[in-house]
Amino acid sequence: MTSLTLALDAMGGDYGPLVTVPAALQALKSNSSLHIIIVGNQVEIDPLLHDAEPSIKHRIQQIHTTEVVNMDDRPVHALRTRKNSSMRLALELVRDGKACACISGGNTGALMAMSKVLLKTLPGVDRPALVTCLPTVTGKPVYLLDLGANVVCDSEALFQFAVMGSVLCEAIHKKQRPKVALLNVGIEEIKGNDQVQQAGQILQHTDQINYIGFVEGDEIYTGNVDVIVCDGFVGNITLKTSEGIAKLLVHQLKCGLNSGFFVRFLSKLIAPRIQAVLSKMNPDHYNGASLIGLRGIVVKSHGNADEAAYLQAINLAATEAKRRLPEMINDRLESILLDINS
Amino acid sequence: MTSLTLALDAMGGDYGPLVTVPAALQALKSNSSLHIIIVGNQVEIDPLLHDAEPSIKHRIQQIHTTEVVNMDDRPVHALRTRKNSSMRLALELVRDGKACACISGGNTGALMAMSKVLLKTLPGVDRPALVTCLPTVTGKPVYLLDLGANVVCDSEALFQFAVMGSVLCEAIHKKQRPKVALLNVGIEEIKGNDQVQQAGQILQHTDQINYIGFVEGDEIYTGNVDVIVCDGFVGNITLKTSEGIAKLLVHQLKCGLNSGFFVRFLSKLIAPRIQAVLSKMNPDHYNGASLIGLRGIVVKSHGNADEAAYLQAINLAATEAKRRLPEMINDRLESILLDINS
Repeated sequence: MTSLTLALDAMGGDYGPLVTVPAALQALKSNSSLHIIIVGNQVEIDPLLHDAEPSIKHRIQQIHTTEVVNMDDRPVHALRTRKNSSMRLALELVRDGKACACISGGNTGALMAMSKVLLKTLPGVDRPALVTCLPTVTGKPVYLLDLGANVVCDSEALFQFAVMGSVLCEAIHKKQRPKVALLNVGIEEIKGNDQVQQAGQILQHTDQINYIGFVEGDEIYTGNVDVIVCDGFVGNITLKTSEGIAKLLVHQLKCGLNSGFFVRFLSKLIAPRIQAVLSKMNPDHYNGASLIGLRGIVVKSHGNADEAAYLQAINLAATEAKRRLPEMINDRLESILLDINS
Repeated sequence: MTSLTLALDAMGGDYGPLVTVPAALQALKSNSSLHIIIVGNQVEIDPLLHDAEPSIKHRIQQIHTTEVVNMDDRPVHALRTRKNSSMRLALELVRDGKACACISGGNTGALMAMSKVLLKTLPGVDRPALVTCLPTVTGKPVYLLDLGANVVCDSEALFQFAVMGSVLCEAIHKKQRPKVALLNVGIEEIKGNDQVQQAGQILQHTDQINYIGFVEGDEIYTGNVDVIVCDGFVGNITLKTSEGIAKLLVHQLKCGLNSGFFVRFLSKLIAPRIQAVLSKMNPDHYNGASLIGLRGIVVKSHGNADEAAYLQAINLAATEAKRRLPEMINDRLESILLDINS
């Protein structure tokens, strides 16, 4: 088995090394061909590595830095001044071919800006997009992009996201002609803002993309569509709203099943089953959004991910690295763009 | 008890009179001071009124028209050409003081445009907003606006929505200084697009509004905020997404509790309790979005509302009429705007 090296921004996320380092150890334990370069403050990281087995320890490299990107750093500021930050150094490892993917739970805007400058976008891509898989009623996942990397998007950006999302779905799920839709406030052609309407016009004339039109928010989770495209402002709020309503439902269910002796008794008996269902819906199980459209692999973890959720993000990065995702996207993208421009 | 007359656009919504007329009969049955003017095609409506009791029938007036606003009519087109549509005639009844509120499940854009032209906005309000109450973890509702009446909004529009939402919450829930927030992709000041950032700046300097800053999508359902403001594009997608994920969770739960004999047996015993919880979360129970900022009351029902859901919308219109909502909003708004401009 070929070995695989990942670069970890250990300081990113709400809990920093307390989450990222144990998750890295878990990943190394379950995948013996994995190597991880942990970038961050050794003073905080070393104690967390202390008890690791030698077989795991020898697959860890460390790069020490005390500089971090703050959550409220503006992207441009982070880019100009955080030259020795854990985020930047981790990305440089990918740029320099020393790691094949980078994982960070830090400031999304800064990660996006640094990734774009350091790794560069693929030919034909102006702006990378943040994309993740979400569960649906049918059981097959749906890709939603952009999730917040691009707060303001023109129709050309939305079009490129549609192409990249389609290619990603083809590449990872081996799905032929995945159904691509634009997220909008109605399915009728007259609905929406200029950007969405113009993007729809372009996609309608792009034969290589299986564009099915506009969908509303309630279509995200039906499984009728494979790829749903929106700007990063809408995508981010859509994703966070989903988490919020899921938490509300779980709360209501717990309250409802916790009143009255008989109901409480019965509820306890089926609690494991309910737990299993709810954990399937736990957003942590879908942790890890990929920044696609770059010449390298970058996976963004939720800032508030716990160890299990962060492990998901590491595993996602490893999978994308194994499948050489950027190369796959590039190949398909080239063909689509050639077709469009011919 | 003072009598109350509502105007019903019987043709609006996916099912037209088949839903709107039975819901009207229900409303009249449960509220003996209520009168309803049903506007629409008598050929379709009459058979549905056939079996109504005389005590109900005599509180129904009918205005016959065969013209309707189509779901794909552009607002400007509807305004110019649908002069005899059920939607327009129902709104004219409110304008002419013959009804104190109008309910429609039709084309939102057209309803918005017609309402604005026929009823006019309150002084200081440029654009009406669509607002609804949503359930939260704490049990107290949160107001979310705009839900789709204004697909593109500048910072001034967002500011006005914040003022109107705050006043609405004060007026209906007797809540002192309700907490108002702007929906954004992050809570840090640097986050978001220009419109949201500028609206935040204005709100920060408006003492009469208890503005608490930006919130992310997962804060909508926590109950920590009373009023959440966003543009209609984001609001519509947020609302529909919530419906989608709620449906997904219910589906997963049903599947999870339907496998294995023992679990199935136990599930059946607590099914009524689960059903009760889920029905509390049913978006139909929150049906009825108010178009606020107008000199009259307009309630928009979901297009796909069933009879029970449509009844909610009628009841909401009746409540707002009883409380003379536009006058209450106007009084408070005047004071806030005077204060701001002084």
